[in-house]
Parts: sequence; C-alpha cells; structure tokens
Amino acid sequence: MSVEEYLENKANVLRLHSIRSTTKAKSGHPTSCLSSAEIIATLFFNVMNIDPKHMDYLDNDEFVLSKGHAAPILYAALAEAGVIPRDKLMTLREFDSELEGHPVPRIKGIRVATGSLGQGLSIGLGMAYAKKLLGIDRRVYVLLGDGEVAEGSIWEALNLAGKLKMSNLVAILDMNRLGQSEPTMFQWDWRAYAERVKAFGWNVTVCDGHDVKDLIRAFDEAKKSDKPFFIIAKTVKGKGVSFLENVEGRHGRALSEEELNKAEKEILPKIKDIDFQPQNFIEAKVPIEPQKKYSIKTDYKIGDMVATRVAFGRALVKLGEQNDKVVVLDGDVKNSTFTIYFFDKFPERSIQCYIAEQNMVGMAVGLQTQGFDVFLSSFACFLTRAYDQIRMATYSRANLKIAGSHAGVSIGKDGPSQMGLEDLALFRALFGSIVLYPCDAVSAEKLTCEMANYENISYIRTTRPKTPVIYDNSEEFHIGGSKVLRWSKNDEVTVVAGGVTVHEALKAYEKLRAEGINIRVIDCYSVKPLDAETLIKASEETKHIITVEDHYPEGGIGEAVAALGLKPHILAVRRMPHSGEPEELLAEQGIDAAGIIKKVKELVE
Amino acid sequence: MSVEEYLENKANVLRLHSIRSTTKAKSGHPTSCLSSAEIIATLFFNVMNIDPKHMDYLDNDEFVLSKGHAAPILYAALAEAGVIPRDKLMTLREFDSELEGHPVPRIKGIRVATGSLGQGLSIGLGMAYAKKLLGIDRRVYVLLGDGEVAEGSIWEALNLAGKLKMSNLVAILDMNRLGQSEPTMFQWDWRAYAERVKAFGWNVTVCDGHDVKDLIRAFDEAKKSDKPFFIIAKTVKGKGVSFLENVEGRHGRALSEEELNKAEKEILPKIKDIDFQPQNFIEAKVPIEPQKKYSIKTDYKIGDMVATRVAFGRALVKLGEQNDKVVVLDGDVKNSTFTIYFFDKFPERSIQCYIAEQNMVGMAVGLQTQGFDVFLSSFACFLTRAYDQIRMATYSRANLKIAGSHAGVSIGKDGPSQMGLEDLALFRALFGSIVLYPCDAVSAEKLTCEMANYENISYIRTTRPKTPVIYDNSEEFHIGGSKVLRWSKNDEVTVVAGGVTVHEALKAYEKLRAEGINIRVIDCYSVKPLDAETLIKASEETKHIITVEDHYPEGGIGEAVAALGLKPHILAVRRMPHSGEPEELLAEQGIDAAGIIKKVKELVE
Repeated sequence: MSVEEYLENKANVLRLHSIRSTTKAKSGHPTSCLSSAEIIATLFFNVMNIDPKHMDYLDNDEFVLSKGHAAPILYAALAEAGVIPRDKLMTLREFDSELEGHPVPRIKGIRVATGSLGQGLSIGLGMAYAKKLLGIDRRVYVLLGDGEVAEGSIWEALNLAGKLKMSNLVAILDMNRLGQSEPTMFQWDWRAYAERVKAFGWNVTVCDGHDVKDLIRAFDEAKKSDKPFFIIAKTVKGKGVSFLENVEGRHGRALSEEELNKAEKEILPKIKDIDFQPQNFIEAKVPIEPQKKYSIKTDYKIGDMVATRVAFGRALVKLGEQNDKVVVLDGDVKNSTFTIYFFDKFPERSIQCYIAEQNMVGMAVGLQTQGFDVFLSSFACFLTRAYDQIRMATYSRANLKIAGSHAGVSIGKDGPSQMGLEDLALFRALFGSIVLYPCDAVSAEKLTCEMANYENISYIRTTRPKTPVIYDNSEEFHIGGSKVLRWSKNDEVTVVAGGVTVHEALKAYEKLRAEGINIRVIDCYSVKPLDAETLIKASEETKHIITVEDHYPEGGIGEAVAALGLKPHILAVRRMPHSGEPEELLAEQGIDAAGIIKKVKELVE
Repeated sequence: MSVEEYLENKANVLRLHSIRSTTKAKSGHPTSCLSSAEIIATLFFNVMNIDPKHMDYLDNDEFVLSKGHAAPILYAALAEAGVIPRDKLMTLREFDSELEGHPVPRIKGIRVATGSLGQGLSIGLGMAYAKKLLGIDRRVYVLLGDGEVAEGSIWEALNLAGKLKMSNLVAILDMNRLGQSEPTMFQWDWRAYAERVKAFGWNVTVCDGHDVKDLIRAFDEAKKSDKPFFIIAKTVKGKGVSFLENVEGRHGRALSEEELNKAEKEILPKIKDIDFQPQNFIEAKVPIEPQKKYSIKTDYKIGDMVATRVAFGRALVKLGEQNDKVVVLDGDVKNSTFTIYFFDKFPERSIQCYIAEQNMVGMAVGLQTQGFDVFLSSFACFLTRAYDQIRMATYSRANLKIAGSHAGVSIGKDGPSQMGLEDLALFRALFGSIVLYPCDAVSAEKLTCEMANYENISYIRTTRPKTPVIYDNSEEFHIGGSKVLRWSKNDEVTVVAGGVTVHEALKAYEKLRAEGINIRVIDCYSVKPLDAETLIKASEETKHIITVEDHYPEGGIGEAVAALGLKPHILAVRRMPHSGEPEELLAEQGIDAAGIIKKVKELVE
C-alpha cells in the first residue's frame, strides 16, 4: 500500500470514528470533522514528528485544533496513533469521559482547551515561540475553521507571527464554505484568504484538502518556508457522506441511526486492511521539568513611596534571575506596568505583543504548555479585552500569571476608559483562580513571588499612584492570607480594605482614634481566596464590618466578604466615574478616609 | 487667505490649544494631538458637513476619534467650530469638566466614549450602516492611531466593512510611527498597512498628513469611492514643536511650563489673523426621535415546553413589528439564539456579523447613536470576547440590549467552552446595567420588552433546554421585580432561584412538602437590580435563605443577595465543569432539586 493509499484509508477510518461517536453521543459536529479527515490523517500519520507514547514531551511537533468543535476527529486520530484506546472513542461527550464535546487537556496529545473560536493560532504562536526559545527544532500545526477567521484574534496572531517570521508555525485552513448559521463570509473564495494572509507576512499555498498527495506537497513547502506558512485547504463540509456534502443546516447535528447506517455503507468500502506503519513516529526525549520554587527578598524602608506596579516590575527581575523559564509578555504598556525592568534585563525572554491583548493571552497559554512560567501584563481595564481567552485558559488548566495595573478611580485624570473597575469581579469568577491585591511595595513583590509558585491562574492588581511602604521586609504573605494592621480589644468596627484603600483606612484609624473611636483595619491582600478565619473572627469581635474598595460593588471585595455570611457595609465605586485628581475621585465615591470615617460614625452613633 | 492657508492656520490653533490645555492639566497626550492637527483641521473646517449648532442631529457627517488619547485636539476643534466655548478648553481633565482625559459623550459633537484602543472603527461602521438604513447621505470619518491597528477588532471592522462595501465610511490612519512604549510594529512602512487594508476590500490612498492640500485630495478621493476608504496619513509625532518631533519617550506626557513657552514661540508665528469662514457648515434638520414605548402580549399555555431563547426570538419579531428602528445583530449563531426569527422577517434590519463579537458590539454602539433600538445576541460565553467593548459602551451611555444564550452547565454535552458561567458577574459589574434572567417563555418575552423600553445597557440571560411555561399570559414582569411562586406561613427556608433552577426549586418544593417541610420559592428574574424588599421580607419570615444558580459563585445571584445583608447559602457551580447530560451536570454541581433538598434538610434538621 502506498503512502497515499494508507493516508486515504486512515482518513476514512477517522471519518468512521467521527460519525459513529457523535451518533452515539446524539450530538456533536460530524460534518466539521468530515471536511478535515484528510488534513488530520496526513498530519498525524505522515507529516508530524510525534511520539504517541510521550505526547507530553517537548520534542514533539505540536497540533492545535483551533476549530475545537471537530474534537471527535482529533480523538479519532489520537486513538489511531495509539495515544488513547480505540474503544474510548464511543464514550464521547459522556459525563465520565475525558473526551468532551470540545477538546480539553485531559488526555495526552491535547495541551489546551479550544472551542471558543479564533483562539488556537495565538496558542500555536506561543508554542512556536517556546520551541525556538528551547532550541527545539519542531513545528506547530494549527487547524483553523473558515468561520473563525472572522475573529480579530486570528489577525492579531497572523500579524505578530508574520512580523516575527515564525517559520516553525503552520496554519491550515479547513475552507469548507459553511458556517453555523449560513455560508461563511468568503465561502470558497480562496483568493480572499490568500491575499489577506500574504499581506500579513505569511507564505501561502492552496491545495485540495481531500487530496493527500496535494496535502503532502503543501506540508513539504511549509517545511522549507522562511516565514510562517498558511495552507488553504479547499474542502467540502460533510465530505465522504453523499447526503451531507456541502449541505446547509447540518452544522452541529449528529447523524441519526438510520443516517449512520447509510453513511457507513459509503465509507466502509473505502477502508482496506491496513498493513503500512506510520513512518513519522519518533522517540521523544525531552520531558517537561517540574515548576521551580521561587523566593523573593525585599529591601524597602517603611514610609518609602513606591507604586505597587513598580514593585511588581522589580519582582519580575528577581524571578527572572532565578530561572530562565520565566517569560514576560506586555502589550505596549511596559513603561506603565513596569515590566520594562524585565524587558531591559532579559530581552530574549520578553515579548512585545503590541496593542493586541487577545493574542498576548493566547501566546501566554501556548508558552506555558512548553514549561515556561509566564507573566503577562497590561492595564487592568485592557485585560477585559481578552477575557474570553482568559476564561478558556482555565479550561486549558493553564499556569498563567496575569498582572493588571492602573486599577480603580485612583488613576485619576485619564478617566474611566483607563480604569480597571470590574477586574476583581472578572478574575474572581474564573474557576480555580487566585486574586491578589497588594497595598505596598513589600507585599507587591512577595505576592508576585506567590504567583510564580502557584500552578494555576493567578491575578495581581496593581495601582498607579505611589503608596507608602507599610510592611517590614521580613513580613510574609501568602495566598489566602490577610494582615490585621490595627486592632484593640475595644474595636467597634472592622474595616476591610485592599490596595489604595488600605492607606485610607489607616488614615481613618488615626482620626477616629483621636476622637475615641477604635476601628480594626484589615489589609485584605488575598481577595480570592479570602482569609475567612480572620474576617469571621473580626466580625465576631466588632459590631460592624465595612469593606472599602476602588472597584464597582458587584463581584468585588465587599460581595466576597458578604458571601462568607458576614454583613459588610460595602463602600465601592457607585457613581459614574470620570476624570479628576485621584483624591477627588476617591472622595466622590466615598472610599477615602473621610468616606470611611463617615460610615463608621453612622454605625457607632 | 486661501483655503490651504486657513486650514494650516487652524491646525496650528488646534496645536496651541492642545499643548496649553494638557500643560494646564499636567497630564495628557500632546504629542499624539500634534501629529493629527492638519487631519483634524481639514476634516472639521473643510471636509465634513456639520452643523455646529445641531451636532446631535442625524444629518451631520460623523467623526469618531478612535485614538481617544488625542481628546484635547478634538475638544479644540469643537471649540473652534463653536460647539463648545473656547475657554472651556482649559478645564481639561478637571474634576468638574466634561472635557475628560479621553472622550465621553458629555458634550455635543461626541457621541461615544473612546480611549480603549481599536474600538472606533466598529463604532464608525455601525454609524455608517445606520446612515444607510436612514437613507441619509452622510459620511463617517474615523481617526485611527497606528498603534491601535494591532488590535484584532480593527480587522474585524475592516473585514465586514469591506464585505458590505460601506462606501460612506472613511478611516484615516495617523501614522506617526511611535507607540507608547516603543515604535509601532510597522513604523512608517505605509506599504505594510496599504497591502493589508487593500486585501480587506478597501480602497486606499497615502498622503502627507501635514499637507492640507494632499489631505483634501485624499478626502476628495474618498468621496468618490465605491468601497470604504482608507487614508494612510504620514505624520510625525509631536509635529510642530521641534523638540518633540519624532522623539521617543514623550507619549502621554504634558509639556512643562518652560517647554510650553518654547513651543508657543514656535507655533504662534504660524498663526495669522483668521478672516476666512469655514465653508462646510450646514444647517442640519433631522433630530433624533425619542425612544418608542413597546409592549408585548404572549400566548402560551401553562406547561408548554419552550426554551427561553426561543421566546426571546419571538419577542424580537413582535418588537420589530412595532417600530422599524429595531435592529438585531448576531454573530453566526442566529439559529441557536433564535434571532433567526427576526432575520427571516426583517432581513434589512438584521446584521450578520459573523464570528466577530467585538465588532458586533462596536457596531451596535454606533447604530444606537443614530436612534436605533439595538439588540445583539450570541452565546453568553462568547460575549466575554467583547467585554472591553461592552464596558466602554457604558461610558458611551449606550442604549444597548444584549442577549446571551446557552448559559450555564445546563447546555450539557458541548462542554465548558460553550457554557456562560461568569456572565452574571460580568454584566452586573457594568455601571448602570440591568440583568434579567427569565425561567419560562412568558417571562422571557415580557422581559425582552422591558429591555426594549430601558434606555441604558441591559442584559438578558437565556438557556438552551426547553423549560415548562409556569406563568399565565397576564402576568407582568418589571425591572427590579421578582415572583414569589410558593409560600405559606410555615415556610422554613427561602429558595431564591433563576432560570433553570427555578424549575428545580419547584420540584424540590413538591418533594419537601410531601415530607412536611415548607419552602418559599422565589423566581429572581431581575438579577440587577434585585427585588430587595421581597427578598428581605422572605429572609425575615423564614429562618434560612438559599440561592441556587447555574453560574460560578462569584458575582452571581448568591453574592448579589448576600450584598443585601442577608446570609444566603449559595448553591452554584463549584466544580470544574465538563460535558455530560444537563441533568447529570446540574446534579454534580448540587444545583438541581436533589441538591436543594439536601441543603434544606441540612438547615432545618
């Protein structure tokens, strides 16, 4: 049997698995699998260098299924390669199965979650960048659907990959003409794609996506390219099953039992006994090293005026010195987020992502799959741009360290477009996330180190204005901790603060004390998880509890404390934010010392 | 004085205002203003048809400052056009001033907020689409920064505008070479932009952005274009002030007083007495009509099985029949969100945005500025893709009606990539938003009508599975309301539910009642604002309160209820979500009837 016959055979085997498993599951996207059968077969059984026994090793070629709804055919390929047992395929989409409706990294051979479209190319770019950093001469292959190419994130990735001349990155467009609800923007107009992608700095070829010989030719060209390579594969949705081919209204619908029988009769005759063995399987040798343990020492004096964003930047350098696996990404704001310290010291491990936050997050997800400890930073408000990517990163089980600067109205005159006022809500609402919010330089550095040591998604919120150092360099901070900064046996009210409002609470403490009113002040630097024990104890020992935060009331510190079953009075940003001096804005929102004092007096009088 | 001399004069007047006002404010982006002085002068005082007395009327040309950080020069142009008084300019960025650090629609001549980069072109596309719908032969001009062109949302907008041949849309690229932290991706390589934009279906010209004659030529070409038109204006950042021209490290920094003096000495000699009057001012005649009042009647039978997403789609048709200003946008999921009913009935007012959610939201913001009542829909989870645009829409004071379908684990087998599990948190955390969550078809239709009548940002959460109709067609629903579905004097526990969990709570009620335990069941269909009165009353009358929601615990119904000072036991999605049958998944998360019963028994025993 020739290579071509072998691959055609395999393609039809993959087709068979795809339609059988989706019919068994009574749902899924068989027609989207059928169009990519030859592409997947050619990649997995001819083109890619993979070690089915060690798919998690670094010296494999990588495959990212950006069109995640074609998951069944990816599972089929992994089964045919011997990565998972064939009989697992029929558990598709079941409650107890790792073979979910869209890919998640619960089996080897799948490193990331996909299914929210338009994200895979950024992830692939991150993987390709990582391979280059590691000095591993392997390629990353990303399979794109034609519908998802409408997503701007695809163009962010194409743009940066083109600029970086990322020659180990190959994208394949499964141009099957039909989207979910109607034909795609450009249907089979391959020139529309070719012109666009070429203009973005890629080499491009067009091929018949159902002709394995033509596919092999295209992949050979890709291997010789000095730029990232884009293969436009002309395909037919539903290919191989006559009554599904190029038919509208069949997206995301499994075949009925009857249809399956008909389809099998068409496919089975094309499958011969397979004796040929795949030639592309390798013996991989480079496992991913376990994450390193980091530590940070600080050298500040109490009262030093240092913005937490500056301290964060300094901490990054200290982490970078401990491990060359630390990588930092920034979106053209490095001089504001202070990742510039890292960029200046470790340029080779610093990635300027320009103003394209979605691609930045996607790249970070790709990089961390290759064993890097990845920090990314932007203004807190601009991270909202990439929230879908961040959400998906949780399903990728990604180890991702995200920093958002310029949080709150305390940024002042730039106005609300630049204010992160919903970031605590967004990052708290991620599965398995931690959310940290330092108020001074010592805690900012040490919490950055906590993030480095955490193996899931973490977020640190930093602020623009300088704030005084209040902690001794010997203080320790940990995930789920807090600091009781002021307390006495006569405390009448507990004030729970974070970041800038900690300093307001301390000012309020002094003024109230002078009037004979004692308040307890807690620095709630770990917003998720909260230090429940300390907060509950405080609420038992004082009559009232106030939370005060530079954030909208929804989903922030106040609601987090309320969810503990305490009854906080929530001081937060409740009026339309706008430009002004930080002090004026904190005052207007009632989250400065005066606002705290006013509330305390209301409660104790 | 010739037109050219007049415009050159004006450009320097605008420069002067820009540097003076930013120095007074001690912050801002003067160099980003200086590069666009001739562009802005030519637009406002030669090219655009505007009525400075009626900038809010529909028959003006429109201008969108996508590079929002150049706000001072926009304010300067509006002052020179007589829209705002000149002396207001020196209040820039002050606490009490409408002239904020980045544009917000607090003065006439500014319809939207900008400042989060890459969003203006989508807004402009929406405006241009609206003008065509209205039959108004006016153009929309969007000024882009070169840094922001890295944003994928720009390419989403370019793509759809190209496909739609939106010939009344003109983009101008202020190609000043320098980003915030370093040079832009392509610096002055105009070919890089020209090739890309041409490939996206636009006509393109290049001009000297400091030569008003060349600018006029470019704008004349734009007027003749049969496609959207892109002007690449070669400019110099800091132009007109010798020591700022093309200098790195001067982004977002005001001039010192001393620098200002030096700069004024360079600019003032270029300003002559101005006698020429602008020729482009018109008398606008088409005001925006006030929003119409909508009503909806339903015709369901109790027990009918209808998904809320279907009812939402039906309601859209009823609204569309009442007013031809209703427009609906969808991102290639109309057959899942059921906007397809509207698309089929009113194709001319239905916009297929393909899989590009950011551009969809931006377009919707643009459309609503022109007096349209705009609904947009996608899966709840994919709306996270456009959260930055949605956040900015609140600062645009936009009247926007957003529908998110397929919320929660109740979607079942497709898995977490398709599950909206953080949407309540995201939409609650928007300033001035309302969040609605119907559990049956009657409430879904009537709440859709409530959204239509609301004049700010509203969100409706719909679900995938069919649910029984539980409300009579005569029932009324309102923002801030709730329904007490089951109650007695002996209720021991209140169960607050929303959407799918309402039906679980009703099942739990029956089973518990059979065991002699009475619970109160509340349909919390208005998640923001909550019906505080009813919830507080219930908590006073029953010993315990449980919330149960198909959403992550953070920022959802439970925390909203907790923030009222009640102490709910929060049942929510607390385990990693995955594929499975809806019933299995609800059970696993403990948010089905059995989960509710278990919790109730824990509390009462």
